[in-house]
Amino acid sequence: MAGPRTEGFSFRVLATSGHARRTVLTTPHGEVDTPTFMPVGTQGSVKGLTPEEVAQTGARIVLGNTYHLWLRPGPDIVSKMKGLHGFSRWPHAMLTDSGGFQAFSLGANGGKKPGESLVKLDEQGVTFRSHLDGSKQHLSPEEAVRVQGLLGADIQMQLDICPPGDSPRPVVEAAVKQTTRWAKRALATPRPPKQALFGIIQGACFADLRRAHAEELAALDPGFDGLALGGFSVGEPIPKMYETLHEMAHLVDPERPRYLMGVGTPRDLLEGIDAGIDMFDCVLPTRNARNGQALTRFGRVVVKQARHREDERPIDPECTCPCCKGGYSRAYLRHLYIAGEMTVLRLLSVHNLHFYGELVAGARAAIQDGTWPAYKAAAIARMSSGEDQE
Amino acid sequence: MAGPRTEGFSFRVLATSGHARRTVLTTPHGEVDTPTFMPVGTQGSVKGLTPEEVAQTGARIVLGNTYHLWLRPGPDIVSKMKGLHGFSRWPHAMLTDSGGFQAFSLGANGGKKPGESLVKLDEQGVTFRSHLDGSKQHLSPEEAVRVQGLLGADIQMQLDICPPGDSPRPVVEAAVKQTTRWAKRALATPRPPKQALFGIIQGACFADLRRAHAEELAALDPGFDGLALGGFSVGEPIPKMYETLHEMAHLVDPERPRYLMGVGTPRDLLEGIDAGIDMFDCVLPTRNARNGQALTRFGRVVVKQARHREDERPIDPECTCPCCKGGYSRAYLRHLYIAGEMTVLRLLSVHNLHFYGELVAGARAAIQDGTWPAYKAAAIARMSSGEDQE
Ligand SMILES: [Zn+2]
Ligand SMILES: [Zn+2]
Repeated sequence: MAGPRTEGFSFRVLATSGHARRTVLTTPHGEVDTPTFMPVGTQGSVKGLTPEEVAQTGARIVLGNTYHLWLRPGPDIVSKMKGLHGFSRWPHAMLTDSGGFQAFSLGANGGKKPGESLVKLDEQGVTFRSHLDGSKQHLSPEEAVRVQGLLGADIQMQLDICPPGDSPRPVVEAAVKQTTRWAKRALATPRPPKQALFGIIQGACFADLRRAHAEELAALDPGFDGLALGGFSVGEPIPKMYETLHEMAHLVDPERPRYLMGVGTPRDLLEGIDAGIDMFDCVLPTRNARNGQALTRFGRVVVKQARHREDERPIDPECTCPCCKGGYSRAYLRHLYIAGEMTVLRLLSVHNLHFYGELVAGARAAIQDGTWPAYKAAAIARMSSGEDQE
Repeated sequence: MAGPRTEGFSFRVLATSGHARRTVLTTPHGEVDTPTFMPVGTQGSVKGLTPEEVAQTGARIVLGNTYHLWLRPGPDIVSKMKGLHGFSRWPHAMLTDSGGFQAFSLGANGGKKPGESLVKLDEQGVTFRSHLDGSKQHLSPEEAVRVQGLLGADIQMQLDICPPGDSPRPVVEAAVKQTTRWAKRALATPRPPKQALFGIIQGACFADLRRAHAEELAALDPGFDGLALGGFSVGEPIPKMYETLHEMAHLVDPERPRYLMGVGTPRDLLEGIDAGIDMFDCVLPTRNARNGQALTRFGRVVVKQARHREDERPIDPECTCPCCKGGYSRAYLRHLYIAGEMTVLRLLSVHNLHFYGELVAGARAAIQDGTWPAYKAAAIARMSSGEDQE
């Protein structure tokens, strides 16, 4: 066990509270204080926002989707434009996924004949059809490293196999084994200097499989710079995810960052942090914003509801984001949403990302101060106190 | 003849060059340096932008569409939210149109039966069906003042009759006469304090009708605070519009602001300013942005064109807007546009409004310096020099 190996990266644990930890991940594009939330910039932009606005929410690392950028505009163009940093003008740290998750989910929509089997998985990799033009594409552990090398984010993710949340144990076991074989091939593939590579632990909600896979991946040498938990929030019951996280996340090599992929709700973040997770990403805050939903410390606010028609209050009077501090009333946001004015999508996205940014900033402070258990409990109680919660 | 009558308003001509003038219109929400361009905030927001961003383009007055805000969210709600200023958070001057133009154009789409005659015009006003729900609505000169009073912009426009650009002279003469009768009714209708009212000169491209109507409206007492030219850019040949403007705009009462409604292209602004116009509005910079078109001092840049695929240059290397100064390449903007990412609509809107803002700021400086004819000639020559012009 040891910290990140790649030049330009280091990792320090500053404080702990139970399994929760306050750490700093150093990257070639600056330091990332964790626990942290990574906004998702699917196609090279966090939808509707500029890099300045994303950074103002407290984010210092964003995620780009390799699948989308690979198909359009293509990794060669991104590389010529000085990589994703130069292309998108995001100056801080950046991580790309392997493209595998979207190849499985969106590749299934790329076929020309209905019912045609579109995604083919074998030992070599995954063959799928582009959801954009139906063209045949092949993604392997080596190709994922090559494409992410051209995209040029600070952190690459290995290609892995993520079975559905209700898969039986033998399917999950096979996915774990194949993910390990692909992990070795990814590590053996040359990548550009100063670009880290994270491995992905599978095992669904079988805590013993997760623990064994975590050990196996952590023991690889030359090794990964960080270890992620994939295959959560893919249809399994949420309490089961929490239980599994609490059983095994803290056992993942403590000298490397731990990243819980594609998760989640504010509550998910609090449970994940409590279980020992350092990094999160999710489309939820930006996707909910586009659906007219603000996430607040008091629960959800659905702006289109008639109750907001004449409501002069901002989304959250305590929030310091440009939407709430800017004095935009719920009545105005509702009007813009119903009128189809895109300004509201920006304002809600900024608010939601700001809320996530404040949630993890608060967690960092609480872990450092030794007040983490109280912080977590208070945050959860408040979230279920509001008028608008689910 | 005299300047604006309404409390809180005054108007000073600082410099002239030929018929072009550099003026200051004082409003209850600050001073407006003219020549000025008013971005259009159709439904209470300049599409995709925040008030801060709009103000950064140099704009100090924006236009709101009464038709849209009347139907949704309704003037009573806007009034309760402290008027359009409080509702939309725009802190500077604001003008609303009368709603008549959209009642004629959009009301024609609001009927339930195809072929049904939907817009009915009589001496009293115009009856139409809402394009949102087909409900019957009636707009009169008095109702336009009442609704605009509730919306609470600094400047109201009278209800007028705007015939199509190819209307024969008798139709135009009738529209002029009806507009005058409605002007008197609008002036006779009480409106909130510190809210100005502008009259609208019609007459199409019959310069003699325009001149006579300008005199007639300017002579009304109690009178208008400003005089607008309506009924241009409604289908008539552009050279004919320029010819008419040059023949009559400078004859409109020089002690009040002159506003050319719904116009136009960068070239239109230069010709209008040269003819003696102070204020302009048009959806063109924001609508073109949404269609992927940047307007620059060197002509149009159509970002989706393949030629920009690997182009690292910003839209205009000389431009100081957040899009160009922010270093967003044509390649990136093209990618975002093709990928349907809304961030590009913001970036292009900001660029286009910034270009308009710089164009009128340059005109103001040139009129003051006595270099206006050279400024206008150079701007027109440059616009037709670029790779992308029409
Ligand atoms: Zn907020
Ligand atoms: Zn620009």
